[in-house]
Amino acid sequence: MSLYSGLFYSSEVEPMVSAEAMLGRMLAFEGALAQAQAGCGLVPEPMAQIIADCCAHPLLDLSKLQAEVALGGNAAIPLVKQLTAQVRGQSEEAARYVHLGATSQDVVDTATILTIKAFSDWLNNRLAAVEEQLTRLTRTYRTTVMPGRTLLQQAKPITFGLKTAGWLDALRRSRQRLAEGQKRVLVLQLAGAVGSRNASIPAGVHRAMATRLGLSESVSWHTQRDNLAEFGATLGILTGSFGKIARDIALLMQTEVAEVFEGKAEGKGGSSTMPHKRNPVTCTAILANANRVPQLVATLLAAMPQEHERSAGLWHSEWDVLTEIMQLTAGVVDKGLDLLTNLEVDPDRMRYNLEQTNGLIYAETVSLALAAHLGKAEAHARVEEASRVAVAEKRHLKAVLEGMNLPLTNLDALFDPMNSLGEALALIDSVLARS
Amino acid sequence: MSLYSGLFYSSEVEPMVSAEAMLGRMLAFEGALAQAQAGCGLVPEPMAQIIADCCAHPLLDLSKLQAEVALGGNAAIPLVKQLTAQVRGQSEEAARYVHLGATSQDVVDTATILTIKAFSDWLNNRLAAVEEQLTRLTRTYRTTVMPGRTLLQQAKPITFGLKTAGWLDALRRSRQRLAEGQKRVLVLQLAGAVGSRNASIPAGVHRAMATRLGLSESVSWHTQRDNLAEFGATLGILTGSFGKIARDIALLMQTEVAEVFEGKAEGKGGSSTMPHKRNPVTCTAILANANRVPQLVATLLAAMPQEHERSAGLWHSEWDVLTEIMQLTAGVVDKGLDLLTNLEVDPDRMRYNLEQTNGLIYAETVSLALAAHLGKAEAHARVEEASRVAVAEKRHLKAVLEGMNLPLTNLDALFDPMNSLGEALALIDSVLARS
Amino acid sequence: MSLYSGLFYSSEVEPMVSAEAMLGRMLAFEGALAQAQAGCGLVPEPMAQIIADCCAHPLLDLSKLQAEVALGGNAAIPLVKQLTAQVRGQSEEAARYVHLGATSQDVVDTATILTIKAFSDWLNNRLAAVEEQLTRLTRTYRTTVMPGRTLLQQAKPITFGLKTAGWLDALRRSRQRLAEGQKRVLVLQLAGAVGSRNASIPAGVHRAMATRLGLSESVSWHTQRDNLAEFGATLGILTGSFGKIARDIALLMQTEVAEVFEGKAEGKGGSSTMPHKRNPVTCTAILANANRVPQLVATLLAAMPQEHERSAGLWHSEWDVLTEIMQLTAGVVDKGLDLLTNLEVDPDRMRYNLEQTNGLIYAETVSLALAAHLGKAEAHARVEEASRVAVAEKRHLKAVLEGMNLPLTNLDALFDPMNSLGEALALIDSVLARS
Amino acid sequence: MSLYSGLFYSSEVEPMVSAEAMLGRMLAFEGALAQAQAGCGLVPEPMAQIIADCCAHPLLDLSKLQAEVALGGNAAIPLVKQLTAQVRGQSEEAARYVHLGATSQDVVDTATILTIKAFSDWLNNRLAAVEEQLTRLTRTYRTTVMPGRTLLQQAKPITFGLKTAGWLDALRRSRQRLAEGQKRVLVLQLAGAVGSRNASIPAGVHRAMATRLGLSESVSWHTQRDNLAEFGATLGILTGSFGKIARDIALLMQTEVAEVFEGKAEGKGGSSTMPHKRNPVTCTAILANANRVPQLVATLLAAMPQEHERSAGLWHSEWDVLTEIMQLTAGVVDKGLDLLTNLEVDPDRMRYNLEQTNGLIYAETVSLALAAHLGKAEAHARVEEASRVAVAEKRHLKAVLEGMNLPLTNLDALFDPMNSLGEALALIDSVLARS
Repeated sequence: MSLYSGLFYSSEVEPMVSAEAMLGRMLAFEGALAQAQAGCGLVPEPMAQIIADCCAHPLLDLSKLQAEVALGGNAAIPLVKQLTAQVRGQSEEAARYVHLGATSQDVVDTATILTIKAFSDWLNNRLAAVEEQLTRLTRTYRTTVMPGRTLLQQAKPITFGLKTAGWLDALRRSRQRLAEGQKRVLVLQLAGAVGSRNASIPAGVHRAMATRLGLSESVSWHTQRDNLAEFGATLGILTGSFGKIARDIALLMQTEVAEVFEGKAEGKGGSSTMPHKRNPVTCTAILANANRVPQLVATLLAAMPQEHERSAGLWHSEWDVLTEIMQLTAGVVDKGLDLLTNLEVDPDRMRYNLEQTNGLIYAETVSLALAAHLGKAEAHARVEEASRVAVAEKRHLKAVLEGMNLPLTNLDALFDPMNSLGEALALIDSVLARS
Repeated sequence: MSLYSGLFYSSEVEPMVSAEAMLGRMLAFEGALAQAQAGCGLVPEPMAQIIADCCAHPLLDLSKLQAEVALGGNAAIPLVKQLTAQVRGQSEEAARYVHLGATSQDVVDTATILTIKAFSDWLNNRLAAVEEQLTRLTRTYRTTVMPGRTLLQQAKPITFGLKTAGWLDALRRSRQRLAEGQKRVLVLQLAGAVGSRNASIPAGVHRAMATRLGLSESVSWHTQRDNLAEFGATLGILTGSFGKIARDIALLMQTEVAEVFEGKAEGKGGSSTMPHKRNPVTCTAILANANRVPQLVATLLAAMPQEHERSAGLWHSEWDVLTEIMQLTAGVVDKGLDLLTNLEVDPDRMRYNLEQTNGLIYAETVSLALAAHLGKAEAHARVEEASRVAVAEKRHLKAVLEGMNLPLTNLDALFDPMNSLGEALALIDSVLARS
Repeated sequence: MSLYSGLFYSSEVEPMVSAEAMLGRMLAFEGALAQAQAGCGLVPEPMAQIIADCCAHPLLDLSKLQAEVALGGNAAIPLVKQLTAQVRGQSEEAARYVHLGATSQDVVDTATILTIKAFSDWLNNRLAAVEEQLTRLTRTYRTTVMPGRTLLQQAKPITFGLKTAGWLDALRRSRQRLAEGQKRVLVLQLAGAVGSRNASIPAGVHRAMATRLGLSESVSWHTQRDNLAEFGATLGILTGSFGKIARDIALLMQTEVAEVFEGKAEGKGGSSTMPHKRNPVTCTAILANANRVPQLVATLLAAMPQEHERSAGLWHSEWDVLTEIMQLTAGVVDKGLDLLTNLEVDPDRMRYNLEQTNGLIYAETVSLALAAHLGKAEAHARVEEASRVAVAEKRHLKAVLEGMNLPLTNLDALFDPMNSLGEALALIDSVLARS
Repeated sequence: MSLYSGLFYSSEVEPMVSAEAMLGRMLAFEGALAQAQAGCGLVPEPMAQIIADCCAHPLLDLSKLQAEVALGGNAAIPLVKQLTAQVRGQSEEAARYVHLGATSQDVVDTATILTIKAFSDWLNNRLAAVEEQLTRLTRTYRTTVMPGRTLLQQAKPITFGLKTAGWLDALRRSRQRLAEGQKRVLVLQLAGAVGSRNASIPAGVHRAMATRLGLSESVSWHTQRDNLAEFGATLGILTGSFGKIARDIALLMQTEVAEVFEGKAEGKGGSSTMPHKRNPVTCTAILANANRVPQLVATLLAAMPQEHERSAGLWHSEWDVLTEIMQLTAGVVDKGLDLLTNLEVDPDRMRYNLEQTNGLIYAETVSLALAAHLGKAEAHARVEEASRVAVAEKRHLKAVLEGMNLPLTNLDALFDPMNSLGEALALIDSVLARS
């Protein structure tokens, strides 16, 4: 039992990365190997069938297996032992063909890749749903004005749709990155003890097995781990982009800002001591994961300089770390989808907040308008002066400017947020057009 | 089920850091709180007793609890809810006093500290056993000569005891560090919603509760996490020192070196394809963990700049990470103890390897002896020349030197490793003297 | 030239960690070595004097030295070469005694330790000044009420002095940690080629040299790097605590919060396009560094499993990283001191913000008062209900409660922030009492 | 002056990432902006020309600029100030058009991208040269037999060409990754204060400016940093692959292995105390960098959740870190090219080492041959038994097997390394065929 798996992970992905699922994929490797070898005439068809059947219906003693993992140093050794015993129960002859020509790392690595494949499919679907929500939000709030903020200070008006368009744009690049990386990561590992293959796993077997498992062929990558590092980094980047979304929403939920909220749910976000609070629980979980994944990616990178033809430790450090990156990423994506699907936006509060600076938020708009007449520096200086007066005398900037005899007509329009949006709407439309 | 917990973790520590154990410590918090409040007259004694009894014999619906963690954002909220219901089953009145004045983070943080306390006790005992083994090895191999190696090349003779004395010296500093940090980390968290305490948890309750739980008092550290970061870093340093041991042994086990070996065990270190191999399985696990812990420590450090009176995410990112650091450290220590207890040393092979450089390993000894006559630079140059000749002509350095008419008497003694040990034995004795 | 050294580093520490300063400390090593050897009768006094004089007035060809570093792999080799040449210019005989019995790593490591010593002294002084400012702020704002915030939402009133007392408490622990670690880190490295010392550097020389340099003696720590890792981690923790301060202040400077501000300075915090903004420039620099240091600490930890008697790479990875940690920490401390010295606090705005929740921020106070009559759960439920009504009807919580016929007298007092401070003032006083 | 830039960095890349170069690219931004605006009729051509001329021939007061960076928080603010003053010296009118509509982050980010562009071009050329060397080595040592090693133990023969083919294969994936990422990272940043652009930087200006600078257009990525994180991660992966090469070579250079060596150079790899040593200095530098880059990549990932429309700290933490990643990667690539170009290989020693196991390295070959007759498990068991005998009696495995009456003909062939290569040669050829 894990206290926090429901908070930080995804219920759909947990079974996908479980020990049982990993063992299942190792057995899928062994079954496919025997069948590929049968197809190449290296193993009698009936023997391969027996092996494949046992792989499909394994009888594992899991606690014994766990105990032996600690002795042998990986899960393939005890698994092959148990599988061989099971096959031998059916046929002495078939038992001779189990795991033929393969090495432990072939099994473990290919099972990892099959996990990545299943996870990538899940992830891509999930991200499509997130993209849909982001598209919806961007359309809905295309013209909903709110303060744009830089260095945590109100700067100039934007629309909430511009903000979500930025989130959407980043998400799409992550999907593109994931797609491009698949050709490098979804590769079979079947290279034998030292990466040179052998008579039992010739090119034909390699090819047939890759086809069976839906993977690409490869030169041995026992100690070339760039593909896993890339996959981990791609998830790390994706997690960072979700972290950005959660950061923004958590800040927008602040009591003093109150522009955007996580959707309510029974029992969610309540405080045990402050009954009125509506905590950003979902953002909190995403931000927690976003603080953890970067370092896990570093571990994968640090694991790359592996010794000779198989590493003594670095390879082993990848196993749980890669799984954890997938778990935390899945949690982030699931939480993110929930967050975006149920997001509540308060356009009135956004408008209200735009007035908190007594018009100073329009200073740049005014400055740019003035620049056409006075040049940038002079305009900047004049507006800076007016701003100082507005602050010191707690007056609205527009009122101050009206008394300054500036070459500006239509001051009202300059203080209408819709006129301070620059090309926001066009930018939004260009992002939406790519949907 | 975890495939690799037996390989990377410690079977003794796993139950100590389990979800169940963590919940038990949260309940210990609630029980101690009620009793401390009773002691200060804030809760009627019988009511406190009922609460304490329920905490000692909880009836938890774990799957419901897990589900609610995801909604509430931490484990304290649903736990207090279930505990209150259980207490209410005994007494409506008692139920009013459950968790009185405390905040979720008080419960979670204090439970974490109690875990650290239990773990630290275990660790300290375990390290005492490691220290004993290192002392034994240092005594046993005090004069066992072997090549000292710098930048992976043979440099000058040392003894194996000097190497283990260095391991021992580092281990002792880690124990000292752990001991010094306890006063900062073993502190109660009981500070209420925003860290200011309240009428239900006055100083007296704080003091009484700290005493009950064997912790020190504290000012609220809800968002001051230096104590946890320090504890994590201390484990990170300890792990690094074990990593150094495993690094050395794995290198010494190399086929071409073969000076030191992990102890044999049935089924251990065998390769599925190369029956003759004796793999450094234990070192491998230690090195794997040593590649993971540094980044987890970084996560704890990165989690320090927590917002205001409770963080939205950074606090949450600590939970599993701190546990994982303890798990991986425990694995390292357990494996390390096993490694050192069963270590096999081959003094003959060490002697044999000392001869692999055709005497070049004694070059510095010769150089220093010559320096007394010729000065360091000149001596260095002459020995460098002799070494070049030795290499080029594949002759023993001693033979080359004999032909060079140098102001050296007793060349044989210079080529006896026992005369190249510098102050190794005195250094070893100084380390042992501190045992 | 570095663009950003003024922003992220400290002008006082930069010369302390410069290449020139490092070379100066290496020469201090060589000078002290010769003199210590003279004291033990291993080097003639006049020769040692010549060496020491040359070390004090070196004639280095820095560009040649830099070029040779890349070939030799560390700075000691070319430095000793140039020093020897310089000494030889004075005396052929003296040249024989330069660097006698020492190894490159002895020089480099001891110079590093001397840098740490100088830096630690600077740091401790600087932290004393920070502590003074924090004490002043804590005294000044002891009773200045403001919203306490959890998960970025207003929770309950605190005082600003309670917040600064927490910062102060953490800072003191960092100073304690630094002080405790000095005995482990301020140690001489003088152990010869493979850590066993030799006839030229016996115990007496070791002792004399340690005394000269103000360091403690040590067993060789060429590949035991726990002391450096600890020092780096201690700085990482300190940086994290300053990051927490900067995080709080940056959030408090938000346009919508506006409770606390960095001091103004000519040209500081201005935006090139938004003349009215007052950016948290100092907090920004601190937070930037706080995002960098954790990973650098991880690098030091990852560098610990060093091979045999000298590492091929891990040792080398420490050099610039340790320097960078000191530089970034120094920047954080300098910026932090400036930040706290010039901090502007707006108590009126704090009071104003306390009213933003329409009284909901007093909900827990009310809840606790009610709990005395109704029990915690019931009280919580009633206040939750009242809060919902207050939100839905946009009424003040006090008004809603007045209509609910609750067993509460003196509702006004419950809504006075001074009555919601719990033990804040006593906690503050306990922290101040330790000054 | 930096002590170690020659050791860890590249002399060709240092000027490319210098402060001066960065300022030059910022000025290139300002010049291109004015000209693009002139092209769109927003700035008079002659004014744009004056600005562009000043940008091409700037008169900067660098020390003043540095001082102001610390106040303003980035380099764009003081740079624009100085540029404007310079332009004003030529024309009051032109001064009005400097930096028109742009924001500081536009300048800084675009300058960063232009640096990445220059660096990527350099890198790609350099990697082509590395690829050439790897191709040459792979061809040359295609059939040079040596021990394959797993978990640091001899496992089965491979050829050195198979090892270098693996290095080459990984390198090519890195080049592919770099190429694919360029479309995402080589993008203009020109989005104005809050990312919405404005009347002075409409789509036309954006497009024209992107064309001028050789970049792609973009939606504002002020707080969407996935492109930089990806670039950093890609360099991290590349560094890891070089780390793997250096790891292998450093291990192969060990005194007891001595199969492969760094090329000799005057003054390189010498030890100050052990004149005979030939240290892996180049590998050491590569491995040092490989221990540093992963954590720097983590910093970039950790910097992703940036607040709102511009971050207060996370953005700033990217600057020096990204530069450092490029510097360290460049160092790795330069060192790597040198390493591979001058690599010395000793095929005789490789053959000699193959004999160190008394034939046990052929155990798997024998086992596989036997498996055809006895099945895998039985074969494995028999060979395991023979191996035990060979070890215990210090006899050659072939001799032991000869006495065991096994169904094997032509035992000699099984002990010829050329017959234990599996498909090594075919794999090598498949890699070479892609050249």
